[in-house]
Amino acid sequence: MSNTHTRTEVQIPATSSVTDDDDAVLDPEVLGAALLGKWADVRRQARELAGRPELHTIEGLSSAEQRERCFGQLRYLVDHHGVHRGFPSRFGGEDNHGGNVAGFEELVVADPSLQIKAGVQWGLFGSAVLHLGTAAHHAAWLPGIMNLDIPGCFAMTETGHGSDVASIGTTATYQLDTEEFVLHTPYRAAWKDYIGNAAVDGRAAVVFAQLITDGANHGVHAFYLELRDSAGQFKDGIGGEDDGLKGGLNGIDNGRLHFTAVRIPRTNLLNRYGDVAPDGTYSSPITSAGRRFFTMLGTLVQGRVSLDGAAVAVSKLALKTAITYAHERRQFNAGPDLREEVIMDYQRHQRRLLPLLATTFAASFAHEELLEKFDGVFSETTDTDADRQDLETLAAAYKPLSTWHALATLQECREACGGAGFLTENRLTSLRADMDIYATFEGDNNVLLQLVAKRLLADYAKEFQGVDFGVLARYVVSQAAGKTLHRSGLRRMAQTMVDTGSERKSAIALRDERTQHELLSDRVTTMIGDLAAALRGTSHMGHAQAAARFNAHQHELIEAATAHAELLQWEAFTRALHAIADPGTRQVLTWVRDLYGLCLLEKNLAWYLMHGRLSAQRARTLGPYINRLLAKIRPHSLQLVESFGYGPEHVRSTLASGTEKLRQEEAAAYMREQRSQRQSTLR
Amino acid sequence: MSNTHTRTEVQIPATSSVTDDDDAVLDPEVLGAALLGKWADVRRQARELAGRPELHTIEGLSSAEQRERCFGQLRYLVDHHGVHRGFPSRFGGEDNHGGNVAGFEELVVADPSLQIKAGVQWGLFGSAVLHLGTAAHHAAWLPGIMNLDIPGCFAMTETGHGSDVASIGTTATYQLDTEEFVLHTPYRAAWKDYIGNAAVDGRAAVVFAQLITDGANHGVHAFYLELRDSAGQFKDGIGGEDDGLKGGLNGIDNGRLHFTAVRIPRTNLLNRYGDVAPDGTYSSPITSAGRRFFTMLGTLVQGRVSLDGAAVAVSKLALKTAITYAHERRQFNAGPDLREEVIMDYQRHQRRLLPLLATTFAASFAHEELLEKFDGVFSETTDTDADRQDLETLAAAYKPLSTWHALATLQECREACGGAGFLTENRLTSLRADMDIYATFEGDNNVLLQLVAKRLLADYAKEFQGVDFGVLARYVVSQAAGKTLHRSGLRRMAQTMVDTGSERKSAIALRDERTQHELLSDRVTTMIGDLAAALRGTSHMGHAQAAARFNAHQHELIEAATAHAELLQWEAFTRALHAIADPGTRQVLTWVRDLYGLCLLEKNLAWYLMHGRLSAQRARTLGPYINRLLAKIRPHSLQLVESFGYGPEHVRSTLASGTEKLRQEEAAAYMREQRSQRQSTLR
Repeated sequence: MSNTHTRTEVQIPATSSVTDDDDAVLDPEVLGAALLGKWADVRRQARELAGRPELHTIEGLSSAEQRERCFGQLRYLVDHHGVHRGFPSRFGGEDNHGGNVAGFEELVVADPSLQIKAGVQWGLFGSAVLHLGTAAHHAAWLPGIMNLDIPGCFAMTETGHGSDVASIGTTATYQLDTEEFVLHTPYRAAWKDYIGNAAVDGRAAVVFAQLITDGANHGVHAFYLELRDSAGQFKDGIGGEDDGLKGGLNGIDNGRLHFTAVRIPRTNLLNRYGDVAPDGTYSSPITSAGRRFFTMLGTLVQGRVSLDGAAVAVSKLALKTAITYAHERRQFNAGPDLREEVIMDYQRHQRRLLPLLATTFAASFAHEELLEKFDGVFSETTDTDADRQDLETLAAAYKPLSTWHALATLQECREACGGAGFLTENRLTSLRADMDIYATFEGDNNVLLQLVAKRLLADYAKEFQGVDFGVLARYVVSQAAGKTLHRSGLRRMAQTMVDTGSERKSAIALRDERTQHELLSDRVTTMIGDLAAALRGTSHMGHAQAAARFNAHQHELIEAATAHAELLQWEAFTRALHAIADPGTRQVLTWVRDLYGLCLLEKNLAWYLMHGRLSAQRARTLGPYINRLLAKIRPHSLQLVESFGYGPEHVRSTLASGTEKLRQEEAAAYMREQRSQRQSTLR
Repeated sequence: MSNTHTRTEVQIPATSSVTDDDDAVLDPEVLGAALLGKWADVRRQARELAGRPELHTIEGLSSAEQRERCFGQLRYLVDHHGVHRGFPSRFGGEDNHGGNVAGFEELVVADPSLQIKAGVQWGLFGSAVLHLGTAAHHAAWLPGIMNLDIPGCFAMTETGHGSDVASIGTTATYQLDTEEFVLHTPYRAAWKDYIGNAAVDGRAAVVFAQLITDGANHGVHAFYLELRDSAGQFKDGIGGEDDGLKGGLNGIDNGRLHFTAVRIPRTNLLNRYGDVAPDGTYSSPITSAGRRFFTMLGTLVQGRVSLDGAAVAVSKLALKTAITYAHERRQFNAGPDLREEVIMDYQRHQRRLLPLLATTFAASFAHEELLEKFDGVFSETTDTDADRQDLETLAAAYKPLSTWHALATLQECREACGGAGFLTENRLTSLRADMDIYATFEGDNNVLLQLVAKRLLADYAKEFQGVDFGVLARYVVSQAAGKTLHRSGLRRMAQTMVDTGSERKSAIALRDERTQHELLSDRVTTMIGDLAAALRGTSHMGHAQAAARFNAHQHELIEAATAHAELLQWEAFTRALHAIADPGTRQVLTWVRDLYGLCLLEKNLAWYLMHGRLSAQRARTLGPYINRLLAKIRPHSLQLVESFGYGPEHVRSTLASGTEKLRQEEAAAYMREQRSQRQSTLR
């Protein structure tokens, strides 16, 4: 249906080539290679670096000490060539865009503060100079940015405007007489806020402001500004304050900035997409102000891409800890002997952890595809408008899912490890605290999903461009008819007739790859079609009326976008699965993919039933089938987390260190001793 | 069906006396009084205390400083009569059990560390001496415990055993020659762990250990042990270590303890439920070892009760912050004017916050009933075996729901406040970090829900006690018939016939109180009936086989328990609603209760559809009706959070302070000024 959708359509063989082999053996090496993806070498290098103690968090430091240590770690990254892959080779970089992000996101396993602080310096501040500036800017500032002589800020968000960047209040007014811009903060809500490096370390900043020349506002543009002198004091007209303690990421010195008639040279405008001539004339290669704005923001998409990757990496760490522990920890003895059950054998424990594991695989494979799309656009090998739009839609779709998933995974893993999970030494709580903000920065998750929904609607409408009224009218009628069909339950009843087989047969049908795909994609298509019908005519309405209509469907729009993103993840998972040659590995991974797909169906089961897509009879087979699938995957769960490729230097959790196993063995030996003593007393 | 269930059955008038008045005016005073409940005076006193700066967290302290401050706050509570209500009046207490817990749980709004540290000292350590000890113990130790001369530990949990307390490894072996018990830790997994006050402050402890006398193990009993001398050094044979930093609650010095042949007098056994005579003979007023164990643990139920209450209180704080902010914060302008929309007007924002608000009311009213049940049992006014069982089942049902709810609420509120929500000054992240462990301590939530499920099954089985085989057989047959009926979809189709009315009519049916109740309770009954059928015969199986069968249904058991707990919360909410005389307040609260009920139906909609309880047609009205209900409740949402009765001294969040409103007004004034300047330029 949609462009994004069509192009990522999964190729499904006529019959599944995978036979269900209960004795399948997973090869963690094979799976590990598939997960490492195209930039495997970079990931290995980055993980080697991320495993070094110099880059690890020391818990219990004061926030001042944490900040200082984190800043020192940035120097370490420079010295060890960890962060320049994305910069032009003429400045000592590698022009390797995908690899650069792959390397960045792995830093999260060392310390999320470090990942984000590095992301601010080189991913946001540096990228803004690189992508929004031109040759003179590059020559002047990129070397200092790269080697950290110029620690800098990316000053976009304001206290009053985060999600709606177009409405920021900071102004940059061109002064003809001095050929300067005057940066100014007109009111308190226009203070730059939550800006990394602003409280202490930032010497310069890329400041986003409304560009005003000759009385006209040309919208948001980026300006390079020197913030502090060599002694670390704010320059004239610049003020600010510390954001203080945060719920996490306290290695980063977030702060506020404000400007009182601060003058900067005209040439400090980063002028790739918009320029002001000495005489004050504004010019831009992009005529539409709206398109210009989105093009400028689009160059900064790598932040979202790398958050998606980092969220996946952290989910892997958490599952490695919780699943390793669940294989060693014993509690309650069900059987007649003294030995208690390993908690991984409890159905509920499997239900809690294994669907999260399946989702992590889906998110990981989907992220790898996103990274390749990103690389294609930024290396300009596949860089059409459609590619750029797809890239942004994919990033906007995946980042919310993976960041929320990371939070859910960290929490479930924490609880699955009980009181021990709450100890800082096991990292789950600290990682969760740090990852919390990933759900709202670089694009609030709920706002991003609305962008996805708007794109889906636009694609949907395109389908009917050029179609004459008759056809469109017919379409609407057939839609309505279809709706009535579902409503009256006729289609559902028809399906009930077909579903005369056993429960087992129904379960087989649901795990069929094509059935899963059909159900998942049908849901997206139908939801978007229904929304398009409900929103028809809004383009002819007044702004307020149209907005009210959209608002009345906002929740459904976000649900539809989520369904779309999940479908895309399922498709990416399936493509990755098909690329694996080793039969045992493919078998086990097929079960994991099925678990992901079936849990999506289960989550939205009411929808499938209400819309007549599944009969009640078939739906009732789903839960029991998922339970059987869990039991099938369970024996492979240790190897599945092993395939993530993270060693003890990355996981750094006592819970996953084997200590629990030693304790269990010691206790078991004591029990045996006691028993044999009792028996010899009886003799 | 079940005892618990039947006794709490809601009384529903033949026709709802509430008319749907769109102009309803809510009186926060009326609602506030209903929420304050039976111990309103105690709550007011406790809140006054909790509002004092002396008891507030200072963020950014080192963990050593935090611990010291928190310990000092315990003295403050003693000095200000905050914590002795539950102790006997002969020791200066008030014998006020319900009021005591009400007072304790309000401390969480000052600081969760303080609530838990106080809970350890007086709620666990003190209560163990009070409820498991006898007169001599009370006389010897209660005064010192009450006035904090004896800071103490509740040493039950071990590294190896948290949920399965019956299997702890610590032994207390009676020595006939010296008339002493020898406390001993036989292996590393038997170290006491996560014990509050153990790392630094504890001078004494109630230690749980396997009581062994004359070669026989009589199960877990509690012993009073002096831990440290007046200089704070461990006494002979006692060792331990600090649990170190935790994900939250760092005001509490959790630690580990182990014992190497530590001798204590025979009389240090807290001997209310089991005693050892000088000659080593064991005696107990309760013959069954299992029943004795659960009776002893049962006296400590107040921990769970007060966690339930504290979780509700924290949810209220979070919603007060997020909903107040959502009324002031503006973002994106939908309409044609310059003024942006207040984010509370966005449908998605309503969907995110208002169902959490509705659940908070349900949990609050349900908690109040739990507290009354607790008070009845502990004041011995309604103290039958059935009352005690009901109390434990209710606590085991509510504590998981409310603690998970608090975490979900804190996180959603954090995200709904964007980056500002992540700043420590707004407390959402710190409260969430502190509340995290509430989901697993004092009974792991998943384990507690299994206790509830077991109780429901036992009640279900009791129904058939004394019934002859014929009737039982008939029952099973009719169950099976009913199942077939649902499976074949006949009942669902029949309902489709009946549901010929408009969507609106269907929506009215769903918001009908009796319909909601019928749907919610039918689900519990059916789930338990199905489980009972699936588990039939397990009592005749071998232990391992029966355990495997139970394990194959573990997830469903927990789901059924959750459904039961939600039903009970809905019933408590409905009873509270009926008790409100003011029509406007009752009207608005009815919408809130409907929102709670309908969101429960929506969450489990697939079940209702699969089991033929709702037609697809009726189910499709649910989402749109919930959206309309959100719009109805939205204008009252500020007053709803006002009714919680927490002032700025409790909320202590900049986000809820009105600062945002001032910023918005300043920005709006600037915009108006700009516009009028532009207009005058045009003139």
